Amino acid sequence: MDKAAARQKFVAEFDNLVKELQEISAGYNMPKEAIEWFTKNLEYNTPGGKLNRGLSVIDTYCILKNKTVESLAADEYKKVALLGWAIELLQAYFLVADDMMDQSKTRRGQPCWYLAEGVGNIAINDSFMLEGAIYILLKKHFRQDLYYVDLLDLFHEVTFQTELGQLLDLVTADEEHVDLSKFSLEKHSFIVIFKTAYYSFYLPVALAMYMCGINSDEDLKQVKDVLIPLGEYFQIQDDYLDCFGTPEQIGKIGTDIKDNKCSWVVNQALLKANESQRQVLDDNYGKKDDESEQRVKDLFAELQIPSIYEQYEEEVVAKLRAQIEKIDESRGLKKEVLSSFLAKVYKRSK
Amino acid sequence: MDKAAARQKFVAEFDNLVKELQEISAGYNMPKEAIEWFTKNLEYNTPGGKLNRGLSVIDTYCILKNKTVESLAADEYKKVALLGWAIELLQAYFLVADDMMDQSKTRRGQPCWYLAEGVGNIAINDSFMLEGAIYILLKKHFRQDLYYVDLLDLFHEVTFQTELGQLLDLVTADEEHVDLSKFSLEKHSFIVIFKTAYYSFYLPVALAMYMCGINSDEDLKQVKDVLIPLGEYFQIQDDYLDCFGTPEQIGKIGTDIKDNKCSWVVNQALLKANESQRQVLDDNYGKKDDESEQRVKDLFAELQIPSIYEQYEEEVVAKLRAQIEKIDESRGLKKEVLSSFLAKVYKRSK
Repeated sequence: MDKAAARQKFVAEFDNLVKELQEISAGYNMPKEAIEWFTKNLEYNTPGGKLNRGLSVIDTYCILKNKTVESLAADEYKKVALLGWAIELLQAYFLVADDMMDQSKTRRGQPCWYLAEGVGNIAINDSFMLEGAIYILLKKHFRQDLYYVDLLDLFHEVTFQTELGQLLDLVTADEEHVDLSKFSLEKHSFIVIFKTAYYSFYLPVALAMYMCGINSDEDLKQVKDVLIPLGEYFQIQDDYLDCFGTPEQIGKIGTDIKDNKCSWVVNQALLKANESQRQVLDDNYGKKDDESEQRVKDLFAELQIPSIYEQYEEEVVAKLRAQIEKIDESRGLKKEVLSSFLAKVYKRSK
Repeated sequence: MDKAAARQKFVAEFDNLVKELQEISAGYNMPKEAIEWFTKNLEYNTPGGKLNRGLSVIDTYCILKNKTVESLAADEYKKVALLGWAIELLQAYFLVADDMMDQSKTRRGQPCWYLAEGVGNIAINDSFMLEGAIYILLKKHFRQDLYYVDLLDLFHEVTFQTELGQLLDLVTADEEHVDLSKFSLEKHSFIVIFKTAYYSFYLPVALAMYMCGINSDEDLKQVKDVLIPLGEYFQIQDDYLDCFGTPEQIGKIGTDIKDNKCSWVVNQALLKANESQRQVLDDNYGKKDDESEQRVKDLFAELQIPSIYEQYEEEVVAKLRAQIEKIDESRGLKKEVLSSFLAKVYKRSK
């Protein structure tokens, strides 16, 4: 099955899940207008993205089982796709809330949900319901499986880790009070690992592993030790492209400098800057005008951030390849799970 | 142990839980300023209320075990108190968010958390973390117990039910577009049962029952069949007192009429009103001025809402007493669990 067909099959499964959630709500005698609202919330916020996280649960499962998507039994596909949608629901939960906290205007080419007609602050409860839907669906489809409780523990832990990362991001990058002395590479590392890497990289693989019965602490540690630095690398790439990628490349205009973001780029600059260069950063970082942003960009070029980035990229990729090479496959884990992830990230331009 | 001492012991346990959450966060290498923020979030939002829900887990457990609080072993007390605090954390999660959605100003005699110095929309992530803390703590203390997965399922279901109730409340009582034709007693009943009764009445008892091993579907149904109508009665009482209680009685000034709330009182009035009385309601309900509010109150008196309320109260209490009388205690459940709840609610004035 090619990528487009795999995606289409996955999206079709979402419609089934929405129907199940409607039936469960109707089973509680929930009035029609509230079911309609919940449906709109689910459909507006969950399926519109790239779906990389959800699809990678299925990819990982197929690699571990040595099967193609087409060869999965219907109920087997349904369950693994549900795990994928559970991650997409978790992401929707975070994004609806993040957009409110960041006062963002658009998401995936449409107005942010809280800015949609008639929504406003109801979006907070809607984000709760996106998360709530995860556990309603997991219970319906996995309650009888021995690994059900492992799935719950994993979702809880990763959710809490993501919230910790978001908290540190929020208290570090205060748009009202710019203070670069709050930044550090250590904090950057914590933020990106907790806010992104756990749920985007570790979670899809760990879910697929549980469903395959590959659940020893050793194997979970083996994948975590690769996927967390890989997720960090992915986010550093994201930070780099926000500043140095063209709008055509990345499909948006980067705003990290104006938004006072604790980005990898500014943290590298802070490490290398002399006193007068530091002054340029203090005077211009986090300012909303184009001239200040340009002065920061010029300084980043002067400090040769691109060559530092290229060096970092080659080093981390070499290290990850060596780690993957040494993976112990004796209990059923496969190197290919990790190398296919790395291939998707390395030298991507968007 | 008298009530004040029981409360004090329970509050002391919260300090231990905060320490555990700090240690877990520090174990993730979370930077200090974020741990301090999380601590403030927990302390500002969790323990300041009446703690009825949390304390009733302990009361119920003691009734079922035929023990006093003093006679509980230290680790036994710790676990049952944690279940109580888990409900209080769940409530904190809802209240931090509800206050933002309702644009409330104060809660428990202090500014709402989102209005506290430097918080703002970060309060959304803070509400998430209050919920997240529940599962981190449950895992730490109950992971080895056979009923651990039952606790998780119960928290998930009740959380989702509360979110459904909140959603219906939000889409029914739109302060911008007052439309009394959206109201009905059926919707009122759904809102109060889902938004309040499940987590405030059923959840504490069900948690204590699981910990006592009284977990058959029959017994859970027996308590639910009493506690859900009891919770509905409690909320109807709340609606009644908001309108007919004195500020001295209820400790606040009722605002349901001005806030266009889908209250039991207005729903009863809508049932009885003739055409001209309905016009008075349409013209004045949900208006922010004192004169409109007084016209609505006068109409409620004219329609004899207080005597309808008294009749409702006597009927529901008689019915609940009869139900409690018929409870099957053969598997360890005790009528006293339910009669002690009813005694706390009947004829309360605040």
